[in-house]
Amino acid sequence: MAIIECIPNVSEGRRLEVVDALADAIRAVPGVRLLDRSSDGAHNRSVFTLVGDAAPLQAAVLALFDAALPRLDLRSHQGEHPRVGAVDVVPFVPIEGATMADCVALARETGAAVAARFGVPVYLYEEAASNPARRNLEDIRRGEFEGLAGRMADPAWTPDFGPAAPHPSAGASVIGARMPLIAYNINLASDRLDVARKIAAAIRFSSGGYRFVKAMGVRLENGTAQVSMNLTNYEKTPIARVFETVKREAARYGVAVLESEIVGLVPAAALRQAAEYYLQLDRFAPDQVLETKLRQADRAE
Amino acid sequence: MAIIECIPNVSEGRRLEVVDALADAIRAVPGVRLLDRSSDGAHNRSVFTLVGDAAPLQAAVLALFDAALPRLDLRSHQGEHPRVGAVDVVPFVPIEGATMADCVALARETGAAVAARFGVPVYLYEEAASNPARRNLEDIRRGEFEGLAGRMADPAWTPDFGPAAPHPSAGASVIGARMPLIAYNINLASDRLDVARKIAAAIRFSSGGYRFVKAMGVRLENGTAQVSMNLTNYEKTPIARVFETVKREAARYGVAVLESEIVGLVPAAALRQAAEYYLQLDRFAPDQVLETKLRQADRAE
Repeated sequence: MAIIECIPNVSEGRRLEVVDALADAIRAVPGVRLLDRSSDGAHNRSVFTLVGDAAPLQAAVLALFDAALPRLDLRSHQGEHPRVGAVDVVPFVPIEGATMADCVALARETGAAVAARFGVPVYLYEEAASNPARRNLEDIRRGEFEGLAGRMADPAWTPDFGPAAPHPSAGASVIGARMPLIAYNINLASDRLDVARKIAAAIRFSSGGYRFVKAMGVRLENGTAQVSMNLTNYEKTPIARVFETVKREAARYGVAVLESEIVGLVPAAALRQAAEYYLQLDRFAPDQVLETKLRQADRAE
Repeated sequence: MAIIECIPNVSEGRRLEVVDALADAIRAVPGVRLLDRSSDGAHNRSVFTLVGDAAPLQAAVLALFDAALPRLDLRSHQGEHPRVGAVDVVPFVPIEGATMADCVALARETGAAVAARFGVPVYLYEEAASNPARRNLEDIRRGEFEGLAGRMADPAWTPDFGPAAPHPSAGASVIGARMPLIAYNINLASDRLDVARKIAAAIRFSSGGYRFVKAMGVRLENGTAQVSMNLTNYEKTPIARVFETVKREAARYGVAVLESEIVGLVPAAALRQAAEYYLQLDRFAPDQVLETKLRQADRAE
């Protein structure tokens, strides 16, 4: 059995009885576990974290649409967070026993099912995108729900599935597949914000750095200069390479690295990869990890 | 149901059809899972990793002796790894729902059964040892199979179970209970066995090195000099510290480290610890690992 993570973002973060109803709809689907939910009033948005195999997850996403559409109306929705739809974004993330290709296929099937069943137009994004202009969520969401009808009149923005016009109350949905994201910060043994900013510029993709790094330099309340990052594909841009590059760039300014920090969750594979890198581990197979082996044996029986 | 790990080491690593037969004998025991097996030609030794509850594991060890004794003869065995018996060493390791005391009791019962059924003398070691002189495997194995008859004539080396003389073809067996062990090798970018031996002497406990390191220098069939180690408590003597010390000692002889290798299984915590060390990860909690979080959710349901 594969483990895939799905993190639907819904445009409702204030009427908590509505969010409860959506959570109940997800929980009612056998084979799906709702790991986490959080609602933000200012953003007027809720984020659900669910895990399961492909088929139960797809059923849970359809159940979520089924519960959300009668209850949410974007024509009266206000909030700080950009959005184009009632069920705004649905990413699938491979965790264990599933590949990115599996998640791309799942995103496409789910997108087709959502359009067919609910008449909601669907855009595929990130790894599931049908063309490079649709990879980035920010590009798809530009102009938000309010600008959607105008944009969809442009043939360049014909949706991947469903009608070429917004659903009246539910707008459009963005469904896709991506790698787990790692929120990773490196604290410098310095208060020099300028150095943190120069390092951030050196390592982030947008200014010529690594392909899967987003970074900015900040100063913490205690005065520590920090390089604050999102690593969007730890397999292709590993934590260890980023850390070593930051150390080297910092040294160029005579600054040392104090410590680093992972915020929230990190896949075990990302830590295993760092151990393999530094220990120069050769021929190490993931199933040499005792706990992984035990779980595989459990499933095999 | 308890989960205990058992890692029999057998003195055969070249005739793989024989190793297959031993694996089959283990697999045939209900309630036992064979998680891993690896054979080393230079060491002429194979390592099996099985898990199960106490009673099935004892049955599997007896089945292994039953299959190994007709097929192995130490009188014609050659290999780089020290050994006193056909089924050389059998440790039991508590993993989940079992204490060290449970594993000590299991080692004693299994040792008594092996001696009674096969006439093989058995020494208890590590946590199961009957006296401090028998805690360390190296002390029991000194002089190896070839010196065993002479040693066993000394009343100080009367076995814990079975006859006070070696089994003609199977020697003696060492059975015990211990914490998880990591079999860890570092290959030098050199063929200098003398350097591998000097490094091994520098890092192992017995000659003044780290408390939980056993090490020896060997030369592999392809000529590579290797520091071959057992790490007996990775929490107190971490892999990263050992690796860095070996690198530094090797540099003192102008030799670089080519790669390192974990043989068999490793607890996830040992790899997490290495990542934390090298990435200078601060305030990292084990339940930030996504898979750990998932398993906690499993248990909560």
